[in-house]
Amino acid sequence: MVPHLHAIRRTALRDLLRESELDALLVTDLLNIRYLTGFTGSNAALLVHAESETETVFCTDGRYTAQAEAELPDLEREIQRPSADALVGRAAARRDRFARTGFESQHVSVEQHATFAGLADGVELVRAPGFVERLRLVKDDEEVDALRAACAAADNALADLIQYGGLRAGRTEREVARELEGRMLDHGSAGVSFESIVAAGANSAIPHHRPTGAVLTTGDLVKLDFGATVDGYHSDMTRTVVLGEPAHWQRELYDLVHRAQAAGCAAVGVGVEVAEVDRAARALIEAAGHGKYFTHGLGHGVGLQVHEAPSLAATGVGTLTAGMAVTVEPGVYLAGRGGVRIEDTLVVRDGTPEILTLSTKELVVV
Amino acid sequence: MVPHLHAIRRTALRDLLRESELDALLVTDLLNIRYLTGFTGSNAALLVHAESETETVFCTDGRYTAQAEAELPDLEREIQRPSADALVGRAAARRDRFARTGFESQHVSVEQHATFAGLADGVELVRAPGFVERLRLVKDDEEVDALRAACAAADNALADLIQYGGLRAGRTEREVARELEGRMLDHGSAGVSFESIVAAGANSAIPHHRPTGAVLTTGDLVKLDFGATVDGYHSDMTRTVVLGEPAHWQRELYDLVHRAQAAGCAAVGVGVEVAEVDRAARALIEAAGHGKYFTHGLGHGVGLQVHEAPSLAATGVGTLTAGMAVTVEPGVYLAGRGGVRIEDTLVVRDGTPEILTLSTKELVVV
Repeated sequence: MVPHLHAIRRTALRDLLRESELDALLVTDLLNIRYLTGFTGSNAALLVHAESETETVFCTDGRYTAQAEAELPDLEREIQRPSADALVGRAAARRDRFARTGFESQHVSVEQHATFAGLADGVELVRAPGFVERLRLVKDDEEVDALRAACAAADNALADLIQYGGLRAGRTEREVARELEGRMLDHGSAGVSFESIVAAGANSAIPHHRPTGAVLTTGDLVKLDFGATVDGYHSDMTRTVVLGEPAHWQRELYDLVHRAQAAGCAAVGVGVEVAEVDRAARALIEAAGHGKYFTHGLGHGVGLQVHEAPSLAATGVGTLTAGMAVTVEPGVYLAGRGGVRIEDTLVVRDGTPEILTLSTKELVVV
Repeated sequence: MVPHLHAIRRTALRDLLRESELDALLVTDLLNIRYLTGFTGSNAALLVHAESETETVFCTDGRYTAQAEAELPDLEREIQRPSADALVGRAAARRDRFARTGFESQHVSVEQHATFAGLADGVELVRAPGFVERLRLVKDDEEVDALRAACAAADNALADLIQYGGLRAGRTEREVARELEGRMLDHGSAGVSFESIVAAGANSAIPHHRPTGAVLTTGDLVKLDFGATVDGYHSDMTRTVVLGEPAHWQRELYDLVHRAQAAGCAAVGVGVEVAEVDRAARALIEAAGHGKYFTHGLGHGVGLQVHEAPSLAATGVGTLTAGMAVTVEPGVYLAGRGGVRIEDTLVVRDGTPEILTLSTKELVVV
């Protein structure tokens, strides 16, 4: 990502700050800092002035001096620890220019806030939750590129896993998960997006099953929920396959979830209420009498976090905007028998959404 | 870990709560919850009553109903989301028994606290930072067993890496890191403890280098800082090797850091000030004129987090207690040439500390 890009994001943030009559925002969440600066270290703070890039200061500690210089050559950098405290001190020293400084009150702890208040020296610290997250809701082209690459790594890994016989009776869930994760690295992933789920047989009915030494057996549904990361962006995809000839109930269950997932994807569009998207998929599952076995929301936003806003759930509020990246992942879980979940990552577009996870959704029999 | 064990920890917490005249503690940090209950899911809250186990309630959401039942059969469980809000509601409904309820103010955000306050309905919410962390400072036998197993996985992985020729000129830092991580999994690690550092040649002078496509070359110092996890506990170890016959300056640098590391380990003992341990190692490096190239603290606590209290740094305060697990990791970094860091994970004992990372600290020439 080019520095230029981050400067554009900071400009967008400044517009929001001025709308809220804030002189500045103290950014302490590391993902928000990465979004605004490109910095990838494990400690930093950023004080964004609402009017001026030259009064915007980044702070980290001595471990990251060289890295910060390389990653954000265009910003003033201070080396100090604790970094956020140092920036509150900076604001206090220039309180004519930082009179009303917002802080990320959904990230800053009660204790940290007490420390800030002790250093503020006349600067009014204003609760300002979610400013950067609001920008992050809509992905720019560079972000979508990274998401696309992460989704491709996952797609390719699954294709290889199946092609080279990695998904077969006799292996354990854990072995399959490890091979899948290795293959994502082979295809350019920097790491796993979250703890991979490989759930065979009755375990597939556990929505968030953790891979065990359980052995894959002919006749099993095998649910695989996994993701890659590229440039900090996460992919998220679930596929459910069957080992050997599927039983009638397995086909029926798969077909139901498949149709619900397609209905969910079809409902994704600009201006659509998030709860409506959930409804579109859930209605089919309820009509089939399985509503109570679809125990979670339909989907969630994906980006620098694998789970972020918006929430595509019955209780979700708000509408979709072009450029949002979301998952659509209905599931039906029949305890003791097996479950099916099918999940894609999509980008909301004017018209048809762009599906980033391209592995087939037809029932794969291996 | 047996449930019994977690009940003992909750009893120890109750003693602390009563000393502070708290009726209860709302625990929201997931690692603290894992410590107190064994729960390993990604969403939970726990309300520990200061007097009574039967009034202690655990809460998670529907994804983890079965897992919670399996992991903490001995505790009352509620399924609700948001889980922490639900438990504040529980306290409010029984405010005669929860009049003064502490919350983890170093973890709870300003926004979350505002929500709690809106639900507290007469319950006094008291800032109560660090109660569980205070218990976690001193590891019990089960925790040391897990740390020992994690350190053994890292030791064995490094031994295999070297024995099977994984550390050789022509490979990239990234390839070496990946092999090392795979070998830790082979030896029982559940995952990596943190982003592995493999830094060759001049890169070894970057304290927190991230593995790149840089190729290992004969004559390079290669710094490897990596760790495994077992049962949620982290190992942390650094070794620096040289590829081919070491140059005079490399031997000299290695020998200096080696002696400083031994001095740091020798200083670890019950009742010793943490700053004293740092001093013991740093004095040798300063005496050799390299003080300004040792740019970080000597070490840190290790447990459910790879970095936790206590901090073994010049600015650290407090003394060591039997059962603390800490790292000792001096380093000298000569920009553009190379660096050496040697790190062990140790348990403080009466008398000589127990070193958990057993790989040789003699200069390894591969």
